Amino acid sequence: MPLPLEAGARIIVTGGTFDKRYDAIKGELTFKETHLPAILEQARVTLPLSIDIRLLIDSLHMTDAHRRGVLDACRGSPEHAIVVIHGTDTMVQTAEVVGRAELAKTVVFTGAMVPYSVQGSDAPFNLGFALAMAVALPHGAYVAMNARVFRWDNVTKDRVEGQFKALR
Amino acid sequence: MPLPLEAGARIIVTGGTFDKRYDAIKGELTFKETHLPAILEQARVTLPLSIDIRLLIDSLHMTDAHRRGVLDACRGSPEHAIVVIHGTDTMVQTAEVVGRAELAKTVVFTGAMVPYSVQGSDAPFNLGFALAMAVALPHGAYVAMNARVFRWDNVTKDRVEGQFKALR
Amino acid sequence: MPLPLEAGARIIVTGGTFDKRYDAIKGELTFKETHLPAILEQARVTLPLSIDIRLLIDSLHMTDAHRRGVLDACRGSPEHAIVVIHGTDTMVQTAEVVGRAELAKTVVFTGAMVPYSVQGSDAPFNLGFALAMAVALPHGAYVAMNARVFRWDNVTKDRVEGQFKALR
Amino acid sequence: MPLPLEAGARIIVTGGTFDKRYDAIKGELTFKETHLPAILEQARVTLPLSIDIRLLIDSLHMTDAHRRGVLDACRGSPEHAIVVIHGTDTMVQTAEVVGRAELAKTVVFTGAMVPYSVQGSDAPFNLGFALAMAVALPHGAYVAMNARVFRWDNVTKDRVEGQFKALR
Repeated sequence: MPLPLEAGARIIVTGGTFDKRYDAIKGELTFKETHLPAILEQARVTLPLSIDIRLLIDSLHMTDAHRRGVLDACRGSPEHAIVVIHGTDTMVQTAEVVGRAELAKTVVFTGAMVPYSVQGSDAPFNLGFALAMAVALPHGAYVAMNARVFRWDNVTKDRVEGQFKALR
Repeated sequence: MPLPLEAGARIIVTGGTFDKRYDAIKGELTFKETHLPAILEQARVTLPLSIDIRLLIDSLHMTDAHRRGVLDACRGSPEHAIVVIHGTDTMVQTAEVVGRAELAKTVVFTGAMVPYSVQGSDAPFNLGFALAMAVALPHGAYVAMNARVFRWDNVTKDRVEGQFKALR
Repeated sequence: MPLPLEAGARIIVTGGTFDKRYDAIKGELTFKETHLPAILEQARVTLPLSIDIRLLIDSLHMTDAHRRGVLDACRGSPEHAIVVIHGTDTMVQTAEVVGRAELAKTVVFTGAMVPYSVQGSDAPFNLGFALAMAVALPHGAYVAMNARVFRWDNVTKDRVEGQFKALR
Repeated sequence: MPLPLEAGARIIVTGGTFDKRYDAIKGELTFKETHLPAILEQARVTLPLSIDIRLLIDSLHMTDAHRRGVLDACRGSPEHAIVVIHGTDTMVQTAEVVGRAELAKTVVFTGAMVPYSVQGSDAPFNLGFALAMAVALPHGAYVAMNARVFRWDNVTKDRVEGQFKALR
């Protein structure tokens, strides 16, 4: 069996904590531009990657129209291995929209509990983990956080612990 | 098909650039203790993990006896998903020793081109990527670097580029 | 003339952006504990220092009573070289309260535009700069930011630029 | 007495640990370019500064000719407040060359025990401390490390502790 990596992968950016930056004038965390190119350079990635910067919003502000846009982006992707960078608060809802569409692709949702721009961020680890899962897992929609991967219909965010858990 | 993650994974530490630290008195990069617990805490990992700190050496100093020790550690691991943190210079040789043994386990070798303790390190991304591959790939020995995964018998380090490449 | 350093210095902590940390559960920057010991260890400081952790609040929440408390802390300090870590928004007001008291001490207010826990923070530089000024300047109250030092009665924060400037 | 800051300052770069970077291909710390502009941007400096990148070498490789070059750079500086970034191993020798020249300027030598590019560097703190001393102290040559400042003729590096100390 050949390793299915050579076809490359796609990363769809929607924002979330992963990409928040500190605005020194406003004194708060906001969105300005994605950190993704910096993380990929730091990771010395040679896997062919397409980057689709679709949104840069807090996932609490994500509407049904936004979620359909993410689904369309997955459906239209020429690559069959897809990572979606997403805020953790409504990541499961968007994964459900993509999961129900039963695309012939592997779509892995990930994000971060601590922004890439803050010391001690989980963003680079999570991106590496999700990208490997997007390449290696069978078709379907998944959530990858905390070094674990869950099917879209068997995952919830425990907001007290700040961790993702299986439903059953 | 159930996702095979719940059994947990094992990380075997051997040293390499991944774990080098700056010694302010000597003015050079040396080994003191592994950064692995810090990286796993930062990544907010909830996957059950066993850590086996076997060696903390430069992979150029790795002998045949050391490599057999790594093989023994893989063979003795109760977990079937294994990541070996290894220096990049002789990672392929040790992967070959493990690969030829044809264990009924998935062993993924990874490391870093820049130490975790240095700005712009690829260590957290690589660890996330390798851990996902250890969980998701069929049994065998692999090298995972540059967001790519290679079978042990189809990989080489391009020392000029500082990248891992397939042989064919 | 002997260098007046050997008597040591005092650092009074009141909070401000300098000391904000990211709370991964709440998803926002809050106060938990001061970063000061970490910064001083990182800076390899051997100057005798007393640390007075008085407040950990946003300077927009600072009341007249809080400011009198800072003045009392300066007045009671056995060390004559004092740095006050303070939020930038009302730093000038508190410096005025201390300045009008005309203590026989050198009190230098500083803070940060980016928290120590965020990439690209100005906190370590500012602390080093302020500490040197506290040791070297004549008695009085000063604000030290942007690698510049201002008397308490000749400084304002330009909120658009996020910089401190002389009034005249 | 006016605060003597408005005339600006000069920073002369000679290299040293302060400016070492990790070379991922060679696997060692080398010189490539100075981190000084990055540190100054991070520190949000508005003080007018001239940067003179004279050398980028390990101070163990500094010759008498190099030291005379540093002295010439100080002598030729239009600014009277000067910081010299220097390796710690022979910082005291170069400070002596400048000190004996009795320039009508304040020249403060500083450096770092941990490179700026390595986690936990003392470089930003030391630069802030030295710059303030260059602005505030009377004419003369000084060494500023460990949040302390020493006259050029009363300082030594304790190589076991990695700290600078007064001779008497």
